[in-house]
Amino acid sequence: MDSITPVNAAQKEALIRRYGADSVPAVGPWNDVIATMLDHRSVRGYKPDPVPAGTLETMIAAAQSAATSSNMQWTSVVAITDPAKKKKLAEWAGNQKHIEQCPLFLCWVTDMARNAAISKAEKVEFETMPWLETFLVASVDVALAAQNAVVAAESIGLGTVYIGAMRNEPEKVAELLGLPPQCFVLFGLCVGYATEQAVGEVKPRMAQAMMLHHERYDASNADAHRQAHDAEMMRFSARQEMQAGTWTQRVLNRLGPITSMNGRERLRQALNRMGFGIR
Amino acid sequence: MDSITPVNAAQKEALIRRYGADSVPAVGPWNDVIATMLDHRSVRGYKPDPVPAGTLETMIAAAQSAATSSNMQWTSVVAITDPAKKKKLAEWAGNQKHIEQCPLFLCWVTDMARNAAISKAEKVEFETMPWLETFLVASVDVALAAQNAVVAAESIGLGTVYIGAMRNEPEKVAELLGLPPQCFVLFGLCVGYATEQAVGEVKPRMAQAMMLHHERYDASNADAHRQAHDAEMMRFSARQEMQAGTWTQRVLNRLGPITSMNGRERLRQALNRMGFGIR
Repeated sequence: MDSITPVNAAQKEALIRRYGADSVPAVGPWNDVIATMLDHRSVRGYKPDPVPAGTLETMIAAAQSAATSSNMQWTSVVAITDPAKKKKLAEWAGNQKHIEQCPLFLCWVTDMARNAAISKAEKVEFETMPWLETFLVASVDVALAAQNAVVAAESIGLGTVYIGAMRNEPEKVAELLGLPPQCFVLFGLCVGYATEQAVGEVKPRMAQAMMLHHERYDASNADAHRQAHDAEMMRFSARQEMQAGTWTQRVLNRLGPITSMNGRERLRQALNRMGFGIR
Repeated sequence: MDSITPVNAAQKEALIRRYGADSVPAVGPWNDVIATMLDHRSVRGYKPDPVPAGTLETMIAAAQSAATSSNMQWTSVVAITDPAKKKKLAEWAGNQKHIEQCPLFLCWVTDMARNAAISKAEKVEFETMPWLETFLVASVDVALAAQNAVVAAESIGLGTVYIGAMRNEPEKVAELLGLPPQCFVLFGLCVGYATEQAVGEVKPRMAQAMMLHHERYDASNADAHRQAHDAEMMRFSARQEMQAGTWTQRVLNRLGPITSMNGRERLRQALNRMGFGIR
């Protein structure tokens, strides 16, 4: 890719959509790959049309091409098209109808079983397995892979949305998919063509100055940045006819009451039962 | 992007590089975005040339455009160019010289401090903070963001490599960067132009049939797939004049002895001291 272009109208529009007109960052290089990523939005309504032949395999090739720590390749994917399975998963995820609607639902698995099996086959004890570090590095591997798959899907005009609510019922989900111990669905991903109503606006993010630090962490202007982001999110909510709300209000709603976790405070216990150490 | 092309020579070559000639998957849609991701390789040798102006801001705009769970935006980045800081970080990461060499080193921070500060400012208790779930979702957020930044960097001809060894000394790293409690560097990322010697081959991954499951997890052919991947990694190692080794041997070396963790088995205790609950 050497299609680097100077600042142009399309680039400026993409940045205004992402940050609001008051917080446009001074970006440099730009091309179609970057424009694709800037244009991301999560899609929660899908047409019944199937994805083009080979799309799953293309997405997986992109996913596997992401970096994987020490080439341990901790990721598995279970691709679901069976309506009965999607219905169950939608139900356990708090009735998220888009899981049923989308033609392709991908379960992204932190898979420590595949490598654990090598321990058994080769009769070598794997001392590194039962630690938080190993669980974390495996899950980061999965996330890197999934994000490449998302970028691939969006680059061909498909919509996606991550489904964290697979962690509401990790044991039931694992049983439905036939996962062995030391495997769990870190998150799901809906894939398909967005309905017209479901193509929302790009959602604003906080200004770069709030999360990008130079040489040393600096939160000295955090309150001012937060107020600016609150104002931008209010404008976004008004345009979307959403219950008006600042970003701060969303944070309070989401992180305040433990009920907003939908039982996920039990995740560690569930993972222990599922064979993960996480010491 | 509608530059979808039928199977062509370049696509086939990219797939052979990634999977080996015996395991080329039947992919469908293809374009420059996908080709960019397929061509990923980690770079461990950098020219001193700085990255183009605005590159950091472009990478961060891509990063922030990734999905973030409930828009909680858990990611911070500390960008390091100071040679003294890079030297320290390289040392703590087991003397990885490329950390010193690269013109731009990004520390990707699981930042629970920024949202925790809202709890204090708004006088609302955040009951959801001290759980593994919240730490995990925040770290997944960081990984999704970082992967977009990597794709952006590679799309403009830069090389990158993730540095998990930031977790060897999480407390020292946090102190050097001035991180507050409830912040830690999940991983680092070298960014810059690869030296000629450092542009390695694309590293082979296991066949899709080994990690992609349909409707239900199926490991019935895992041993045969593993043998095929071992053979491909042997050929790769021979071409790269690396100490010949199968994939299985790499797994045994990396996951067998606890010494290969370089102290990271202490991560959970360190994170607890750094203000993370992870219950």
